[in-house]
Amino acid sequence: MFEFSATYTDHYELTMGQAYFLAGQKDVLAVFDYFFRKNPFEGGYAIFAGLLDLLAVLEAFRFDKEDLRFLKEQSFDPDYLTYLENFRFKGTVYSPPEGDLVFPTRPVLRVEGNLIETQLIETVLLNILNFQSLIATKASRMRLVAKDHMLIDFGLRRAQGPGGYYASRAAVIGGFDATSNARAARDYNLQPSGTMAHSYIESYESEIDAFRSFAAARPNDCVLLVDTYNTLYSGVPNAIIVAKEMERKGQRLKGIRLDSGDLSYLAQKCRAMLDEAGLSYVRIAASNQLDEYVIRSLMDQGAPIDAFGVGTSVVTGQPDAALDGVYKLAKAGGHPVIKLSENISKITLPDKKQVWRAIDNEGLFLGADVVGLEDETGPVEMHHPFFPHQSCVIKTKETEPLLHPVMVRGKIVYDPPSLPQTAQYARERLKMLPAAYKRFENPHIYKVGISSMLKTLRDRLIDQHKKYPTQLY
Amino acid sequence: MFEFSATYTDHYELTMGQAYFLAGQKDVLAVFDYFFRKNPFEGGYAIFAGLLDLLAVLEAFRFDKEDLRFLKEQSFDPDYLTYLENFRFKGTVYSPPEGDLVFPTRPVLRVEGNLIETQLIETVLLNILNFQSLIATKASRMRLVAKDHMLIDFGLRRAQGPGGYYASRAAVIGGFDATSNARAARDYNLQPSGTMAHSYIESYESEIDAFRSFAAARPNDCVLLVDTYNTLYSGVPNAIIVAKEMERKGQRLKGIRLDSGDLSYLAQKCRAMLDEAGLSYVRIAASNQLDEYVIRSLMDQGAPIDAFGVGTSVVTGQPDAALDGVYKLAKAGGHPVIKLSENISKITLPDKKQVWRAIDNEGLFLGADVVGLEDETGPVEMHHPFFPHQSCVIKTKETEPLLHPVMVRGKIVYDPPSLPQTAQYARERLKMLPAAYKRFENPHIYKVGISSMLKTLRDRLIDQHKKYPTQLY
Repeated sequence: MFEFSATYTDHYELTMGQAYFLAGQKDVLAVFDYFFRKNPFEGGYAIFAGLLDLLAVLEAFRFDKEDLRFLKEQSFDPDYLTYLENFRFKGTVYSPPEGDLVFPTRPVLRVEGNLIETQLIETVLLNILNFQSLIATKASRMRLVAKDHMLIDFGLRRAQGPGGYYASRAAVIGGFDATSNARAARDYNLQPSGTMAHSYIESYESEIDAFRSFAAARPNDCVLLVDTYNTLYSGVPNAIIVAKEMERKGQRLKGIRLDSGDLSYLAQKCRAMLDEAGLSYVRIAASNQLDEYVIRSLMDQGAPIDAFGVGTSVVTGQPDAALDGVYKLAKAGGHPVIKLSENISKITLPDKKQVWRAIDNEGLFLGADVVGLEDETGPVEMHHPFFPHQSCVIKTKETEPLLHPVMVRGKIVYDPPSLPQTAQYARERLKMLPAAYKRFENPHIYKVGISSMLKTLRDRLIDQHKKYPTQLY
Repeated sequence: MFEFSATYTDHYELTMGQAYFLAGQKDVLAVFDYFFRKNPFEGGYAIFAGLLDLLAVLEAFRFDKEDLRFLKEQSFDPDYLTYLENFRFKGTVYSPPEGDLVFPTRPVLRVEGNLIETQLIETVLLNILNFQSLIATKASRMRLVAKDHMLIDFGLRRAQGPGGYYASRAAVIGGFDATSNARAARDYNLQPSGTMAHSYIESYESEIDAFRSFAAARPNDCVLLVDTYNTLYSGVPNAIIVAKEMERKGQRLKGIRLDSGDLSYLAQKCRAMLDEAGLSYVRIAASNQLDEYVIRSLMDQGAPIDAFGVGTSVVTGQPDAALDGVYKLAKAGGHPVIKLSENISKITLPDKKQVWRAIDNEGLFLGADVVGLEDETGPVEMHHPFFPHQSCVIKTKETEPLLHPVMVRGKIVYDPPSLPQTAQYARERLKMLPAAYKRFENPHIYKVGISSMLKTLRDRLIDQHKKYPTQLY
């Protein structure tokens, strides 16, 4: 829906592309890894999301007329502009399925192609994957605590502009049931959902007039907002009157919604009032600044809330604004490369790599992903990149490779699952992760190690750069 | 650029619209206020941004074929669908200029029209104004501390999807000079900016080869990234060699960029090395997790950094994810309306209103905006909505009305300023705000009061609802 022309990128990708082009480097092959360094929300995992949107953007990646006009104005080289005019992304992408669990420091996805094409797509790749993975992860945390209660995304009005469109999709991957976002529902085939606003009530002379008019217009899907004037003395009594009127017409009031006050207390009072009126089928929805912690608290209190409407926190990932995903060169022109850093956790992993996940005898994740070279058959031991005493033998023979080709030479090469299938896959993978990794507070740390062969290569490359002394301050 | 069809809205706007339509309420006139309740970033003000994008969306507001197909599938009423097929927004909008300073609880913008059209645009209005105002405000905080040093937005890769497109625009309104976001630069005529990535260096056999190739491709705008292997022992010495080679060709190296480590220490060391080599014209740019607090610290330390590249914090507003703007009904069918709440700060202001800003004898903001009824000539006193002892007399005769018609019956009725003009306006308005309101820590609170006439009306409406007892828990 967002029209991603090829200038949807950082300007430096374009200037680096020109430098490669003019230096005759454009056909040099490159391998890039996408990975992140820190789980969001101080949690123990992240859910990988955004892949299908990314692949669609890569297939359609074009410089349009406006792009070329703009670049010409910016004094780009005419031959390079001609090259860009005909540019198509012909690279190859290896990835896990959308919805898989991913962990810090290991490659999440790998891109191969020439230096220019792999560089030009960097920004849009990071923009799409960082954001959708952040939101799918946030949504999954709410799903964990909401159990099988309904979760609805109400966030579009507080979303970061059109980010809200993709947030609604990612929230479903993470376990949400429905969205208020009609456009996302339309395009991604999501379940649209919504009730009514306070303004609707206020536009009528009285609350009960507003309820009656709304019930007449929407008899099969009528949820009444009960807190405009006074929840327990006005909203709920009026909703009960209208529900009884609906019953006489053979209709059923679907629910009421609470949007302020002490949601736990009010839900209990409302439930009792509805039950006493013989309306035990009328459901209770609640909204107002919900996040995974508030939902957990409401669930712990046994609040009789059937559906949670979540806004800002699920569409923005608040308090985390971004997954810190990066895109780093691992190989160029046939040579494995490395980026050094004073911060050892920022030293990159060289060469073309595969990632294996260890599975235990019960079919659960053993708690370790091992990064090795692509042509290894599967690791039998894993090393901490820097601390030999933290290395260990992998005690299971069952390891699954995680990176599979999804795009080859610019074409999608697999049959993409539907969004419900992706959400189902995320749910299954999350079930395979032991509970200790899913705790909100101090989760167990999922281990990521490297194979012996990768360790040897990495040590050699670090040695090559040893000529530089450490900068002592 | 984002294709905002009319389903870019919350589903309940559509269902409420249908209820109004079926109840014969579609031509009832309504007045809505857009306002927010809390300054972002615990600051003392917000910058109003997003108006021009909003007005463009309202002028083009249409249900397209896909929208209508989707709504038909959702079992909307056929007559209502016919109405939507021909729907155009014909409402009227009153607003301050983009870039003005705005404060909590007072109307920022007012919309008038029929109940359906004013309701249908709620979500997109909030989506655009909340986000751009958040970002313009965040950017302005960095501008306050960066003084006249260059500020560049590098955030697209960490932005919340295409939110980054609008963030780059809003950052310029708040005082940023340039952006890495080529697409936003193209469409909004911003200054594009960018240097090079670590991958560029790594793709060459050696750092100096990479520097030479980049300088050859971009002699007039060459900024070299110096921290790939070792800033002080490799990056800067190599940059100096290349700068000297450029001098021999009559060229000048524009700058170097630091992206890791102790930026203050490194900038001082780099500055000294460059100066010693006779390269005092070579500028130093720095990036890496900057925000207004880090920039302030670097400035306080006298770090010789000429340009700050800011990512996540300026495109997402981290740590705040959203401005809490709302859109509330103030009048319907000729009657002023009110929304009650147990939380008195959430009780709305009824009727069609104007806002006046008091200006002191030096031409600065006196620190008070007064909300009154639209047909008042200008207030002479202001009341706290609930606490009479906090009421006061306005001691200046100079008050400016802040809400002006910008769209009348669906058409933009003023000559919109250019983006540089809007940025300039924001700068001027910020200068008129005394320093105490611009502090990061415990800023002085800008007062918002209501006129005597508005207070009388409001008290009367609250009295009408007194029949409901307070809910005692």
